[in-house]
Amino acid sequence: MREVYAKEEEKTSRVTPERVFVVVGNKAKTEPFNLNDLAGSAGRMDILCRCIAQTLFISHGVRKNSAVIIVLRGEPSPPKSVMVVGSEVKYMSPDERNIGGIIRKALSIKVGKEWVKSTPGVYVAKKDLKDVLEELKDYEKVYLKECGEDIRKVKFGRKVAFFLGDHIGLSEEDEKLIMSLADRVVSVSPLSLQADQCIVIVHNELDRVLLEE
Amino acid sequence: MREVYAKEEEKTSRVTPERVFVVVGNKAKTEPFNLNDLAGSAGRMDILCRCIAQTLFISHGVRKNSAVIIVLRGEPSPPKSVMVVGSEVKYMSPDERNIGGIIRKALSIKVGKEWVKSTPGVYVAKKDLKDVLEELKDYEKVYLKECGEDIRKVKFGRKVAFFLGDHIGLSEEDEKLIMSLADRVVSVSPLSLQADQCIVIVHNELDRVLLEE
Repeated sequence: MREVYAKEEEKTSRVTPERVFVVVGNKAKTEPFNLNDLAGSAGRMDILCRCIAQTLFISHGVRKNSAVIIVLRGEPSPPKSVMVVGSEVKYMSPDERNIGGIIRKALSIKVGKEWVKSTPGVYVAKKDLKDVLEELKDYEKVYLKECGEDIRKVKFGRKVAFFLGDHIGLSEEDEKLIMSLADRVVSVSPLSLQADQCIVIVHNELDRVLLEE
Repeated sequence: MREVYAKEEEKTSRVTPERVFVVVGNKAKTEPFNLNDLAGSAGRMDILCRCIAQTLFISHGVRKNSAVIIVLRGEPSPPKSVMVVGSEVKYMSPDERNIGGIIRKALSIKVGKEWVKSTPGVYVAKKDLKDVLEELKDYEKVYLKECGEDIRKVKFGRKVAFFLGDHIGLSEEDEKLIMSLADRVVSVSPLSLQADQCIVIVHNELDRVLLEE
Protein backbone atom coordinates (compact mmCIF):
# COMPACT_ATOMS: atom_id res chain seq x y z
CA MET A 1 0.00 0.00 0.00
CA ARG A 2 1.24 3.48 -0.79
CA GLU A 3 2.23 5.71 2.08
CA VAL A 4 -1.02 7.64 2.21
CA TYR A 5 -0.08 9.90 5.05
CA ALA A 6 3.33 11.08 3.90
CA LYS A 7 3.49 14.83 3.89
CA GLU A 8 5.94 17.09 2.11
CA GLU A 9 7.14 19.67 4.55
CA GLU A 10 6.68 23.19 3.29
CA LYS A 11 8.15 26.05 5.19
CA THR A 12 6.28 28.84 3.49
CA SER A 13 2.97 28.50 5.23
CA ARG A 14 1.51 26.95 8.33
CA VAL A 15 -1.19 25.37 6.18
CA THR A 16 0.52 22.65 4.18
CA PRO A 17 -1.57 19.47 4.34
CA GLU A 18 -3.22 18.08 1.26
CA ARG A 19 -6.78 18.27 2.57
CA VAL A 20 -8.09 21.18 4.58
CA PHE A 21 -11.65 21.51 5.85
CA VAL A 22 -12.93 24.94 6.84
CA VAL A 23 -16.12 25.04 8.89
CA VAL A 24 -17.93 28.20 9.95
CA GLY A 25 -19.53 28.06 13.40
CA ASN A 26 -22.06 30.88 13.24
CA LYS A 27 -22.82 30.92 16.96
CA ALA A 28 -19.74 29.17 18.37
CA LYS A 29 -18.36 30.89 21.45
CA THR A 30 -15.09 32.79 21.16
CA GLU A 31 -14.08 32.59 24.82
CA PRO A 32 -13.78 29.52 27.08
CA PHE A 33 -17.13 27.73 27.40
CA ASN A 34 -18.80 25.11 29.55
CA LEU A 35 -17.65 21.62 28.50
CA ASN A 36 -20.89 20.18 29.88
CA ASP A 37 -22.95 22.23 27.45
CA LEU A 38 -21.17 22.07 24.08
CA ALA A 39 -24.47 21.85 22.17
CA GLY A 40 -26.13 24.64 24.16
CA SER A 41 -24.42 27.67 25.64
CA ALA A 42 -21.17 26.97 23.72
CA GLY A 43 -23.06 27.70 20.48
CA ARG A 44 -23.17 24.24 18.89
CA MET A 45 -19.51 23.69 19.57
CA ASP A 46 -20.39 19.95 19.42
CA ILE A 47 -20.71 20.24 15.64
CA LEU A 48 -17.25 21.77 15.33
CA CYS A 49 -15.76 19.13 17.64
CA ARG A 50 -17.18 16.42 15.39
CA CYS A 51 -15.82 18.19 12.30
CA ILE A 52 -12.36 18.21 13.85
CA ALA A 53 -12.62 14.53 14.80
CA GLN A 54 -13.83 13.48 11.38
CA THR A 55 -11.16 15.49 9.62
CA LEU A 56 -8.32 13.96 11.62
CA PHE A 57 -9.11 10.50 12.90
CA ILE A 58 -9.25 7.08 11.34
CA SER A 59 -9.20 3.82 13.28
CA HIS A 60 -6.18 4.00 15.60
CA GLY A 61 -4.56 6.76 13.63
CA VAL A 62 -4.46 10.38 12.58
CA ARG A 63 -4.63 11.67 9.02
CA LYS A 64 -1.31 13.42 8.77
CA ASN A 65 -2.24 14.84 5.37
CA SER A 66 -5.23 16.78 6.72
CA ALA A 67 -6.04 19.87 8.71
CA VAL A 68 -9.19 21.62 9.86
CA ILE A 69 -9.93 25.26 10.53
CA ILE A 70 -13.01 26.27 12.49
CA VAL A 71 -14.12 29.88 12.15
CA LEU A 72 -15.93 30.97 15.31
CA ARG A 73 -18.46 33.78 15.04
CA GLY A 74 -20.19 33.65 18.41
CA GLU A 75 -19.97 36.00 21.37
CA PRO A 76 -18.14 37.57 23.10
CA SER A 77 -15.19 38.37 20.79
CA PRO A 78 -15.78 37.24 17.20
CA PRO A 79 -14.21 36.36 14.91
CA LYS A 80 -11.61 33.80 15.95
CA SER A 81 -10.29 30.76 14.14
CA VAL A 82 -8.80 27.57 15.53
CA MET A 83 -6.68 25.36 13.29
CA VAL A 84 -5.76 21.74 14.01
CA VAL A 85 -2.97 20.19 11.93
CA GLY A 86 -2.99 16.40 11.61
CA SER A 87 0.76 16.03 11.17
CA GLU A 88 1.49 17.83 14.44
CA VAL A 89 -1.39 17.08 16.75
CA LYS A 90 -0.82 15.09 19.94
CA TYR A 91 -2.91 14.17 22.96
CA MET A 92 -6.21 14.40 21.13
CA SER A 93 -8.89 11.74 21.12
CA PRO A 94 -11.97 11.71 18.92
CA ASP A 95 -14.63 12.33 21.59
CA GLU A 96 -16.39 15.69 21.65
CA ARG A 97 -15.46 16.49 25.22
CA ASN A 98 -11.74 15.99 24.66
CA ILE A 99 -11.73 18.11 21.53
CA GLY A 100 -13.96 20.68 23.23
CA GLY A 101 -11.35 20.96 25.99
CA ILE A 102 -8.61 21.57 23.44
CA ILE A 103 -10.62 24.32 21.70
CA ARG A 104 -11.48 25.81 25.07
CA LYS A 105 -7.78 25.99 25.96
CA ALA A 106 -6.99 27.68 22.62
CA LEU A 107 -9.70 30.28 23.27
CA SER A 108 -8.16 31.20 26.61
CA ILE A 109 -5.11 32.66 24.82
CA LYS A 110 -4.96 36.35 23.92
CA VAL A 111 -4.49 36.50 20.17
CA GLY A 112 -3.92 38.85 17.26
CA LYS A 113 -4.01 38.28 13.52
CA GLU A 114 -1.21 35.66 13.45
CA TRP A 115 -1.55 32.01 14.40
CA VAL A 116 -0.43 31.28 17.95
CA LYS A 117 0.26 27.73 19.08
CA SER A 118 -1.96 26.59 21.93
CA THR A 119 -1.15 22.87 22.22
CA PRO A 120 0.76 20.59 19.78
CA GLY A 121 -0.82 21.02 16.36
CA VAL A 122 -3.46 23.47 17.60
CA TYR A 123 -3.31 27.14 16.61
CA VAL A 124 -5.58 30.09 17.28
CA ALA A 125 -5.82 33.56 15.73
CA LYS A 126 -8.15 36.50 15.35
CA LYS A 127 -8.84 35.46 11.78
CA ASP A 128 -12.14 35.56 9.96
CA LEU A 129 -13.22 33.53 6.93
CA LYS A 130 -11.72 36.16 4.62
CA ASP A 131 -8.27 35.77 6.23
CA VAL A 132 -8.50 31.99 6.06
CA LEU A 133 -9.38 32.14 2.37
CA GLU A 134 -6.38 34.40 1.78
CA GLU A 135 -4.12 31.97 3.64
CA LEU A 136 -5.35 29.11 1.48
CA LYS A 137 -4.68 30.92 -1.79
CA ASP A 138 -2.57 28.06 -3.19
CA TYR A 139 -5.33 25.53 -2.58
CA GLU A 140 -8.05 24.40 -4.93
CA LYS A 141 -11.17 25.72 -3.19
CA VAL A 142 -14.33 23.67 -3.04
CA TYR A 143 -17.63 24.80 -1.59
CA LEU A 144 -19.62 21.83 -0.31
CA LYS A 145 -23.30 22.38 -0.96
CA GLU A 146 -26.29 20.24 -1.82
CA CYS A 147 -26.77 21.86 -5.24
CA GLY A 148 -23.19 21.18 -6.38
CA GLU A 149 -21.72 18.76 -8.87
CA ASP A 150 -21.59 15.14 -7.68
CA ILE A 151 -18.23 14.54 -5.98
CA ARG A 152 -17.85 11.23 -7.84
CA LYS A 153 -17.63 13.09 -11.12
CA VAL A 154 -14.92 15.51 -9.93
CA LYS A 155 -11.17 15.14 -10.23
CA PHE A 156 -9.34 17.08 -7.54
CA GLY A 157 -5.80 18.44 -7.51
CA ARG A 158 -3.12 17.71 -4.93
CA LYS A 159 -4.10 20.39 -2.42
CA VAL A 160 -7.75 20.98 -1.79
CA ALA A 161 -9.62 23.09 0.75
CA PHE A 162 -13.28 22.31 1.40
CA PHE A 163 -15.62 24.94 2.85
CA LEU A 164 -18.80 24.16 4.71
CA GLY A 165 -21.25 25.62 7.19
CA ASP A 166 -22.65 24.41 10.51
CA HIS A 167 -26.34 23.65 11.23
CA ILE A 168 -27.28 27.17 10.16
CA GLY A 169 -25.30 26.99 6.92
CA LEU A 170 -23.32 29.88 5.49
CA SER A 171 -24.68 33.42 5.50
CA GLU A 172 -25.37 35.07 2.17
CA GLU A 173 -22.31 37.22 2.67
CA ASP A 174 -20.01 34.27 3.45
CA GLU A 175 -21.40 32.36 0.53
CA LYS A 176 -20.73 35.27 -1.82
CA LEU A 177 -17.17 35.54 -0.53
CA ILE A 178 -16.49 31.83 -0.99
CA MET A 179 -18.17 31.71 -4.37
CA SER A 180 -16.01 34.58 -5.59
CA LEU A 181 -12.92 32.46 -4.93
CA ALA A 182 -14.13 28.87 -5.20
CA ASP A 183 -13.01 26.66 -8.05
CA ARG A 184 -16.16 24.58 -7.83
CA VAL A 185 -19.29 23.67 -5.88
CA VAL A 186 -19.55 20.00 -4.99
CA SER A 187 -22.23 17.79 -3.46
CA VAL A 188 -21.51 14.60 -1.54
CA SER A 189 -25.00 13.14 -1.16
CA PRO A 190 -28.52 13.27 -2.59
CA LEU A 191 -29.61 14.21 0.96
CA SER A 192 -28.74 17.21 3.09
CA LEU A 193 -26.17 15.93 5.58
CA GLN A 194 -24.48 17.27 8.69
CA ALA A 195 -21.10 18.95 8.25
CA ASP A 196 -19.08 16.14 9.86
CA GLN A 197 -20.83 13.56 7.70
CA CYS A 198 -19.81 15.53 4.59
CA ILE A 199 -16.20 15.42 5.77
CA VAL A 200 -16.32 11.62 6.20
CA ILE A 201 -17.63 11.21 2.66
CA VAL A 202 -15.10 13.61 1.10
CA HIS A 203 -12.27 11.72 2.79
CA ASN A 204 -13.68 8.43 1.53
CA GLU A 205 -13.80 9.67 -2.05
CA LEU A 206 -10.22 10.99 -1.87
CA ASP A 207 -8.95 7.83 -0.13
CA ARG A 208 -10.40 5.72 -2.91
CA VAL A 209 -8.88 7.85 -5.66
CA LEU A 210 -5.50 8.03 -3.93
CA LEU A 211 -5.30 4.28 -3.53
CA GLU A 212 -6.50 3.54 -7.02
CA GLU A 213 -3.74 5.70 -8.53
CA MET B 1 -37.63 13.04 -5.12
CA ARG B 2 -38.89 9.75 -3.79
CA GLU B 3 -40.08 9.59 -0.23
CA VAL B 4 -36.87 8.18 1.19
CA TYR B 5 -38.03 7.95 4.76
CA ALA B 6 -41.35 6.23 4.31
CA LYS B 7 -41.53 3.15 6.44
CA GLU B 8 -43.97 0.29 6.14
CA GLU B 9 -45.33 -0.48 9.56
CA GLU B 10 -44.87 -4.09 10.52
CA LYS B 11 -46.47 -5.37 13.66
CA THR B 12 -44.60 -8.63 13.92
CA SER B 13 -41.34 -7.37 15.30
CA ARG B 14 -39.96 -4.35 17.05
CA VAL B 15 -37.13 -4.24 14.51
CA THR B 16 -38.73 -3.13 11.25
CA PRO B 17 -36.61 -0.38 9.68
CA GLU B 18 -34.84 -0.94 6.42
CA ARG B 19 -31.34 -0.32 7.73
CA VAL B 20 -30.14 -1.58 11.06
CA PHE B 21 -26.63 -1.10 12.45
CA VAL B 22 -25.44 -3.37 15.24
CA VAL B 23 -22.34 -2.26 17.13
CA VAL B 24 -20.61 -4.26 19.86
CA GLY B 25 -19.15 -2.19 22.69
CA ASN B 26 -16.65 -4.56 24.24
CA LYS B 27 -16.04 -2.51 27.38
CA ALA B 28 -19.16 -0.32 27.44
CA LYS B 29 -20.69 0.00 30.89
CA THR B 30 -23.97 -1.80 31.59
CA GLU B 31 -25.13 0.40 34.44
CA PRO B 32 -25.49 4.21 34.58
CA PHE B 33 -22.13 5.90 33.99
CA ASN B 34 -20.51 9.31 34.36
CA LEU B 35 -21.57 11.59 31.50
CA ASN B 36 -18.37 13.60 31.96
CA ASP B 37 -16.24 10.56 31.18
CA LEU B 38 -17.87 8.79 28.22
CA ALA B 39 -14.50 7.94 26.66
CA GLY B 40 -12.95 6.76 29.94
CA SER B 41 -14.77 5.06 32.79
CA ALA B 42 -17.92 4.53 30.68
CA GLY B 43 -15.91 2.12 28.50
CA ARG B 44 -15.69 4.10 25.25
CA MET B 45 -19.37 4.90 25.34
CA ASP B 46 -18.44 7.92 23.15
CA ILE B 47 -17.96 5.56 20.20
CA LEU B 48 -21.42 4.08 20.67
CA CYS B 49 -22.98 7.55 21.04
CA ARG B 50 -21.43 8.54 17.72
CA CYS B 51 -22.69 5.33 16.10
CA ILE B 52 -26.22 6.14 17.25
CA ALA B 53 -25.94 9.72 15.98
CA GLN B 54 -24.58 8.69 12.61
CA THR B 55 -27.21 6.00 12.17
CA LEU B 56 -30.11 8.34 12.87
CA PHE B 57 -29.32 11.94 12.01
CA ILE B 58 -29.07 13.89 8.81
CA SER B 59 -29.16 17.69 8.59
CA HIS B 60 -32.27 18.82 10.48
CA GLY B 61 -33.86 15.39 10.30
CA VAL B 62 -33.97 11.80 11.48
CA ARG B 63 -33.64 8.75 9.27
CA LYS B 64 -36.98 7.11 9.90
CA ASN B 65 -35.93 4.05 7.92
CA SER B 66 -33.03 3.23 10.25
CA ALA B 67 -32.33 1.79 13.67
CA VAL B 68 -29.26 1.03 15.72
CA ILE B 69 -28.59 -1.60 18.35
CA ILE B 70 -25.60 -1.29 20.66
CA VAL B 71 -24.53 -4.46 22.46
CA LEU B 72 -22.86 -3.57 25.75
CA ARG B 73 -20.35 -6.01 27.20
CA GLY B 74 -18.77 -4.00 29.99
CA GLU B 75 -19.13 -4.27 33.76
CA PRO B 76 -21.04 -4.65 35.98
CA SER B 77 -23.92 -6.61 34.41
CA PRO B 78 -23.17 -7.67 30.82
CA PRO B 79 -24.63 -8.28 28.38
CA LYS B 80 -27.23 -5.60 27.70
CA SER B 81 -28.45 -4.12 24.45
CA VAL B 82 -29.96 -0.72 23.73
CA MET B 83 -31.95 -0.17 20.55
CA VAL B 84 -32.87 3.22 19.09
CA VAL B 85 -35.54 3.28 16.38
CA GLY B 86 -35.46 6.26 13.99
CA SER B 87 -39.18 6.27 13.28
CA GLU B 88 -40.07 6.58 16.97
CA VAL B 89 -37.28 8.55 18.57
CA LYS B 90 -37.96 11.99 20.06
CA TYR B 91 -35.98 14.49 22.13
CA MET B 92 -32.61 13.29 20.87
CA SER B 93 -29.91 15.53 19.48
CA PRO B 94 -26.73 14.36 17.79
CA ASP B 95 -24.19 15.38 20.43
CA GLU B 96 -22.48 12.64 22.44
CA ARG B 97 -23.57 13.97 25.81
CA ASN B 98 -27.25 14.03 24.91
CA ILE B 99 -27.16 10.52 23.51
CA GLY B 100 -25.04 9.37 26.46
CA GLY B 101 -27.75 10.65 28.79
CA ILE B 102 -30.39 8.69 26.90
CA ILE B 103 -28.34 5.46 27.09
CA ARG B 104 -27.66 6.13 30.76
CA LYS B 105 -31.37 6.41 31.43
CA ALA B 106 -32.05 3.14 29.59
CA LEU B 107 -29.40 1.38 31.69
CA SER B 108 -31.10 2.48 34.91
CA ILE B 109 -34.09 0.23 34.12
CA LYS B 110 -34.25 -3.33 35.45
CA VAL B 111 -34.57 -5.57 32.42
CA GLY B 112 -35.03 -9.14 31.30
CA LYS B 113 -34.81 -10.77 27.89
CA GLU B 114 -37.55 -8.68 26.23
CA TRP B 115 -37.19 -5.10 25.01
CA VAL B 116 -38.46 -2.54 27.49
CA LYS B 117 -39.14 1.03 26.38
CA SER B 118 -37.05 3.59 28.21
CA THR B 119 -37.81 6.82 26.32
CA PRO B 120 -39.59 7.32 22.95
CA GLY B 121 -37.87 5.06 20.43
CA VAL B 122 -35.33 3.77 22.93
CA TYR B 123 -35.47 0.18 24.17
CA VAL B 124 -33.27 -1.86 26.47
CA ALA B 125 -33.02 -5.61 27.15
CA LYS B 126 -30.71 -8.22 28.58
CA LYS B 127 -29.85 -9.36 25.06
CA ASP B 128 -26.48 -10.41 23.75
CA LEU B 129 -25.25 -10.41 20.15
CA LYS B 130 -26.70 -13.90 19.65
CA ASP B 131 -30.19 -12.71 20.62
CA VAL B 132 -29.91 -9.68 18.38
CA LEU B 133 -28.89 -11.87 15.44
CA GLU B 134 -31.88 -14.09 16.10
CA GLU B 135 -34.19 -11.09 16.19
CA LEU B 136 -32.83 -9.90 12.84
CA LYS B 137 -33.38 -13.25 11.14
CA ASP B 138 -35.39 -11.70 8.28
CA TYR B 139 -32.64 -9.23 7.47
CA GLU B 140 -29.82 -9.58 5.01
CA LYS B 141 -26.79 -9.67 7.31
CA VAL B 142 -23.62 -7.84 6.41
CA TYR B 143 -20.39 -7.92 8.38
CA LEU B 144 -18.42 -4.70 7.87
CA LYS B 145 -14.71 -5.47 7.79
CA GLU B 146 -11.66 -4.14 5.99
CA CYS B 147 -11.08 -7.39 4.10
CA GLY B 148 -14.59 -7.52 2.63
CA GLU B 149 -15.93 -6.94 -0.85
CA ASP B 150 -16.07 -3.27 -1.90
CA ILE B 151 -19.50 -1.88 -0.96
CA ARG B 152 -19.76 -0.19 -4.37
CA LYS B 153 -19.87 -3.57 -6.04
CA VAL B 154 -22.64 -4.93 -3.83
CA LYS B 155 -26.38 -4.83 -4.44
CA PHE B 156 -28.34 -4.98 -1.19
CA GLY B 157 -31.89 -6.14 -0.56
CA ARG B 158 -34.67 -4.10 1.05
CA LYS B 159 -33.82 -4.91 4.67
CA VAL B 160 -30.21 -4.98 5.67
CA ALA B 161 -28.47 -5.29 9.03
CA PHE B 162 -24.82 -4.23 9.28
CA PHE B 163 -22.58 -5.57 12.05
CA LEU B 164 -19.47 -3.84 13.28
CA GLY B 165 -17.14 -3.61 16.27
CA ASP B 166 -15.87 -0.73 18.37
CA HIS B 167 -12.20 0.35 18.69
CA ILE B 168 -11.25 -3.17 19.83
CA GLY B 169 -13.11 -4.86 16.97
CA LEU B 170 -15.07 -8.06 17.33
CA SER B 171 -13.74 -10.98 19.37
CA GLU B 172 -12.92 -14.20 17.58
CA GLU B 173 -16.06 -15.73 19.09
CA ASP B 174 -18.35 -12.87 17.97
CA GLU B 175 -16.81 -12.93 14.54
CA LYS B 176 -17.41 -16.68 14.21
CA LEU B 177 -21.03 -16.21 15.28
CA ILE B 178 -21.64 -13.40 12.79
CA MET B 179 -19.82 -15.18 9.99
CA SER B 180 -21.96 -18.27 10.51
CA LEU B 181 -25.06 -16.17 9.74
CA ALA B 182 -23.78 -13.34 7.54
CA ASP B 183 -24.75 -13.13 3.90
CA ARG B 184 -21.59 -11.24 3.04
CA VAL B 185 -18.55 -9.35 4.27
CA VAL B 186 -18.29 -5.83 2.97
CA SER B 187 -15.63 -3.10 3.10
CA VAL B 188 -16.38 0.62 2.87
CA SER B 189 -12.89 2.08 2.50
CA PRO B 190 -9.31 1.22 1.56
CA LEU B 191 -8.39 2.45 5.06
CA SER B 192 -9.40 1.14 8.46
CA LEU B 193 -12.05 3.56 9.70
CA GLN B 194 -13.88 4.18 12.96
CA ALA B 195 -17.26 2.50 13.40
CA ASP B 196 -19.30 5.69 13.07
CA GLN B 197 -17.43 6.64 9.90
CA CYS B 198 -18.35 3.26 8.40
CA ILE B 199 -22.00 3.97 9.16
CA VAL B 200 -21.86 7.35 7.39
CA ILE B 201 -20.40 5.73 4.29
CA VAL B 202 -22.89 2.84 4.24
CA HIS B 203 -25.76 5.32 4.46
CA ASN B 204 -24.27 7.36 1.63
CA GLU B 205 -24.01 4.30 -0.63
CA LEU B 206 -27.60 3.28 0.11
CA ASP B 207 -28.92 6.85 -0.27
CA ARG B 208 -27.33 7.05 -3.68
CA VAL B 209 -28.76 3.73 -4.83
CA LEU B 210 -32.20 4.51 -3.45
CA LEU B 211 -32.35 7.84 -5.22
CA GLU B 212 -31.00 6.51 -8.48
CA GLU B 213 -33.71 3.82 -8.63
